[in-house]
Amino acid sequence: MTKYTKKDFPVENVRRFLEPGPIVLVSSAHHDQTNIMTMGGHMVMEFSPSLISCLIASGNRSFELIRKSRQCVINVPTVDLATTVVKIGNCSGRDTDKFFEFGLTPKAGTHVRAPLIEQCYANFECTLADAGWVNKYNVFVFEVVKAHVATSPKVPKTIHYRGDGEFMISGAETRKYRRLFKPQML
Amino acid sequence: MTKYTKKDFPVENVRRFLEPGPIVLVSSAHHDQTNIMTMGGHMVMEFSPSLISCLIASGNRSFELIRKSRQCVINVPTVDLATTVVKIGNCSGRDTDKFFEFGLTPKAGTHVRAPLIEQCYANFECTLADAGWVNKYNVFVFEVVKAHVATSPKVPKTIHYRGDGEFMISGAETRKYRRLFKPQML
Repeated sequence: MTKYTKKDFPVENVRRFLEPGPIVLVSSAHHDQTNIMTMGGHMVMEFSPSLISCLIASGNRSFELIRKSRQCVINVPTVDLATTVVKIGNCSGRDTDKFFEFGLTPKAGTHVRAPLIEQCYANFECTLADAGWVNKYNVFVFEVVKAHVATSPKVPKTIHYRGDGEFMISGAETRKYRRLFKPQML
Repeated sequence: MTKYTKKDFPVENVRRFLEPGPIVLVSSAHHDQTNIMTMGGHMVMEFSPSLISCLIASGNRSFELIRKSRQCVINVPTVDLATTVVKIGNCSGRDTDKFFEFGLTPKAGTHVRAPLIEQCYANFECTLADAGWVNKYNVFVFEVVKAHVATSPKVPKTIHYRGDGEFMISGAETRKYRRLFKPQML
């Protein structure tokens, strides 16, 4: 697994890594329990405050840990972790300690008790900002209160889910359209 | 521009094209006005009914057309349309007829009055399912009521936005993790 050196990153700019749509790992903690889940559904809602809506099915062990602790960490894994990401999505925290089982390292955050996953490219510490659609749609709105991002590479090779066990791996990066943009519409 | 032949597609499976996170074009119509906007923020919320939440900033001309008509079409463009997608995102429907300006063909849908964009790989006809967060967050929840998808290629080469004028182009597709999946957790 890749070892990343990370630095603080502006929370208002996490769209850089989330808006392209990668599958992410969500880590949580409540009392003496921790868990990790694989999550494909998320959306950047505001830049400042940095609000992200997330779909967390109520059948997941993580649903209760996050609802009760009102915190989580959104971790962005890269393609070298793909097998682990799939396996995490296919077992339950009810009978598996996922950090131990998959050799992942929990790292203390600065703003939340939920552990960061060291092996991921980026870690976004989150607090629950709006629970209004939790019961209705399983949608949590989080505020990213602290972001840690790898210093290299500039952009991660991420994995994107199509459903039915199929993935797309992120491809080429381009800045060539940048000259067409008006700054206020970026 | 690529010319696609399309067929009906199951609405409960539009995640296949939306969950990987491409930037999309949203077309709308109200009375005698039509518009197109570029949208980076969307999330698959439920499969059946097929619910998608979308972020549409209230400053956009499309915001009012969609709020009033309670309909839109989510169109998935491919990389050959990238320049057009960027230009659409950088002008306003207040002073531009975007179909005419960018040589795009409006096509009649079967369930909504908003026009489909013929040159896009997929077109999802949507009706407004929940306006509860429109004023609070500019978030619209749509139900996909009809889906049209190109018969070829199997997966589109899509464009994914990083903010700041930078894009990621979708890369390799893989089914190699499929054997690790439990069907009920797909």
